[in-house]
Amino acid sequence: MIWLNSMKNKIIYNYLGKVLIGLALLFIFPIIVCFIYHETIIPFIIPQMISLTLGILLSKIDVKNDRIYAKQGFQIVAISWILISIIGAFPIYLNQDAGFIDALFETVSGFTTTGSTIFDNVENLNKSILFWRSFSHFIGGMGVLTFVIMIIPLSSQGKSMHVLKAEMPGPTVGKLVPSIKKTLIYLYTIYLGLTITEIVLLLFGGMEFFDSLLISMGTAGTGGFSVLNSSLATYSTFCKCVVAVFMFLFGVNFNLYFLFFIGGIKNIFKSEELRVYILIFILSVAFIFTNTVGLFANSLQALIEATFHVSSIITSTGYSVGDINIYPTSCRAVMMLLMLISACAGSTCGGFKVSRLIIIFKSIKRDIIKLIHPNSVRAITFEGKKLSEDTIKSTSTFMFLYVILIIIMVFIVSFDGFSYEKTMNAVFTTFGNVGLCFDVTSFSEFSNLSKITFCIGMLLGRLEIFPILILFMDRSKE
Amino acid sequence: MIWLNSMKNKIIYNYLGKVLIGLALLFIFPIIVCFIYHETIIPFIIPQMISLTLGILLSKIDVKNDRIYAKQGFQIVAISWILISIIGAFPIYLNQDAGFIDALFETVSGFTTTGSTIFDNVENLNKSILFWRSFSHFIGGMGVLTFVIMIIPLSSQGKSMHVLKAEMPGPTVGKLVPSIKKTLIYLYTIYLGLTITEIVLLLFGGMEFFDSLLISMGTAGTGGFSVLNSSLATYSTFCKCVVAVFMFLFGVNFNLYFLFFIGGIKNIFKSEELRVYILIFILSVAFIFTNTVGLFANSLQALIEATFHVSSIITSTGYSVGDINIYPTSCRAVMMLLMLISACAGSTCGGFKVSRLIIIFKSIKRDIIKLIHPNSVRAITFEGKKLSEDTIKSTSTFMFLYVILIIIMVFIVSFDGFSYEKTMNAVFTTFGNVGLCFDVTSFSEFSNLSKITFCIGMLLGRLEIFPILILFMDRSKE
Repeated sequence: MIWLNSMKNKIIYNYLGKVLIGLALLFIFPIIVCFIYHETIIPFIIPQMISLTLGILLSKIDVKNDRIYAKQGFQIVAISWILISIIGAFPIYLNQDAGFIDALFETVSGFTTTGSTIFDNVENLNKSILFWRSFSHFIGGMGVLTFVIMIIPLSSQGKSMHVLKAEMPGPTVGKLVPSIKKTLIYLYTIYLGLTITEIVLLLFGGMEFFDSLLISMGTAGTGGFSVLNSSLATYSTFCKCVVAVFMFLFGVNFNLYFLFFIGGIKNIFKSEELRVYILIFILSVAFIFTNTVGLFANSLQALIEATFHVSSIITSTGYSVGDINIYPTSCRAVMMLLMLISACAGSTCGGFKVSRLIIIFKSIKRDIIKLIHPNSVRAITFEGKKLSEDTIKSTSTFMFLYVILIIIMVFIVSFDGFSYEKTMNAVFTTFGNVGLCFDVTSFSEFSNLSKITFCIGMLLGRLEIFPILILFMDRSKE
Repeated sequence: MIWLNSMKNKIIYNYLGKVLIGLALLFIFPIIVCFIYHETIIPFIIPQMISLTLGILLSKIDVKNDRIYAKQGFQIVAISWILISIIGAFPIYLNQDAGFIDALFETVSGFTTTGSTIFDNVENLNKSILFWRSFSHFIGGMGVLTFVIMIIPLSSQGKSMHVLKAEMPGPTVGKLVPSIKKTLIYLYTIYLGLTITEIVLLLFGGMEFFDSLLISMGTAGTGGFSVLNSSLATYSTFCKCVVAVFMFLFGVNFNLYFLFFIGGIKNIFKSEELRVYILIFILSVAFIFTNTVGLFANSLQALIEATFHVSSIITSTGYSVGDINIYPTSCRAVMMLLMLISACAGSTCGGFKVSRLIIIFKSIKRDIIKLIHPNSVRAITFEGKKLSEDTIKSTSTFMFLYVILIIIMVFIVSFDGFSYEKTMNAVFTTFGNVGLCFDVTSFSEFSNLSKITFCIGMLLGRLEIFPILILFMDRSKE
């Protein structure tokens, strides 16, 4: 009760209330789908009412000073994701023959834009449930953008936690409310604009509207839930190419789209992260193409598949257009690596992020030079700016936590007794919010312990580890 | 030629000459074994002559100022290990039906105290070759101790590269020659004393002298080459227990043995690293025992096997007393982890070392606390002393390099097309200088590319990465 009465926590409750009211409103969309396809709305109405009631109650908590500090921002984000996942699991739990842990796994996988599923046969699912799964990717993606572009820059640690372009337009939350709104409007406009463009192009490529809507929402959130069991394998080549391009685009730092509209294309390619992202992309495609071209009837098909899968994995989306299990071990190794690296910061992608990789490599290079020439003093620059030592240290800490959490997760999941490749791959794919997994079509084959581990891993990965840690570590100190 | 004439490099050549003369002298021991077992001495005489001639030539290079700087120390160590491995490969190449790469792999595995073998059937090998393999572990172990206790502390970076107890007696090399000798004598006395004690105990346990000599040398260097194909499985339980205890003892920081003789047992347990080492040891044994007890006829046998294998793997020795392939995945995961962690700094073990692990964890803890309480300023202490930020940063860099090198190696070896577990395990076991590998009895099944990768990995792991890097990076800058 002390916690409830604390001034700082009141603001957390207040915001959580607003988030829940927002969730209640979002339930309107799957309910519309229910009406269109004549499916029952009960599984959506129940969580909607819970969300609305709880939301109104919480938002009634009076807050005198509405300034949010970084810590509260992190706590709000972490609790929101957990709450939304739990309430969002109800439609799946009530509608399908799934246990609550399975339903929770599916929803966490949705809102964290992972895209790993516990369903063996998604074609059996109700249309409204299919919509809800993909819609959760779309909402998750918006949430992530808000989080990485609006909330992280709140804290001085934020800058180091997640390296964003310093030229980013817009102020920090809590100072100028109109400007936050403006930034958010820009952000969501770009997000929605890209999604709608993809839908239109997919329709043009001969895809049905329902499928194109769901797949575009899955692409936007870099999620990966599909409408068919074969993922995207049966769609036209044109559609596959469209999705490949859009997955790539959603892997770019959204701040660069701002910059694009302000300063044109030239401005964008100044970004070191983008250049390295493109380089990794091209090298990976070249490698996988060279090593798999013999498996295909013609080399164009091999090139398209290689490009699609690299785009799908590096952006942590997880769509597929063919059987990746036939790829040689070396290609699988590259794909596992891409799962860990992921694309740009400030996008909807999960994983470690290219920017952090660059900082780590630069820091290693400096340390080795210093070992050879002890008196050399060099600052590390990134995106044309000098990085503070705090930023470098936080990036290191992030990497340690990343490695340690992966090890812990692999250890827990190894109790299920699957092969190492499968165990590790399942951990990488959930922790990196990718979703695609070798030798796994459905996560229902894992134990409940593993499923819960995956859920925690997906949340940790999605929220860049620290907010979840703060949530659990700080409570005990209050 | 500029390099040859440089003053700084002359001293490197001079020292390499001394090392090679030393190697020539060491060849006397296997030659004695040849005489005892009536085997040909030619394969040992040829490399002995090469070593002697080259050694005398190099040591004739005139050096006016015999002060060694840290960089030169590192270069001498790195080149020595490579040279000794190449020359040391001749006996195996000339004596057995092995290609030169196989012979080189075996020798690098010996001198880096790894213990991975390319021979399917070691019982077929000549006695003199068996001796030479285990003797290379023993020499390698002495070399490592000299390196980590004498040469690393030379550099200011050294302290951070490899954390040693600051209370370490003895001065740094290059200042007081008599005292270096004294330190070395202490060091080698302890090393030899422990080895002889083990030999005596094994003889007492019913082992033949030849076997007990070889196995004790392999234990001392934490190597792992065995005399029988079944490693230690067929020896008496008493012998197994003796080896388990001695493997553990050789995993302790040798500075602690100094402290023991000066200040008694109480002094030793002040060491944080030792306490954590013991803790990890006990927890691992308990875990593996609990999860494998069902596989054995009685629980005592299960306990002995669990203890033996944990001791063997954590100290990077690699002996075995039973089939580890039947262990459940979770136990294999723990063992893979132990391969990466390894035992104490300042011992003959390979791997990451417990001390670094402690520093990494403390640094993560501090960073998380700082994230929650941005104004907190805390210094990290280790072994009762405040660590400099440079030490923490170098430990981070070491970890990055460790992870990156593992990833590169796994990638190269994955071309062989083995399962992930096997590929990763082979990389961990060579890079961590362990030698024991699930599903692998002989490394001959890997491609030459992989064998060369393993050789480089064993050398990088053995010499704590930096010296080898300096060797290749600095040459180009001179």
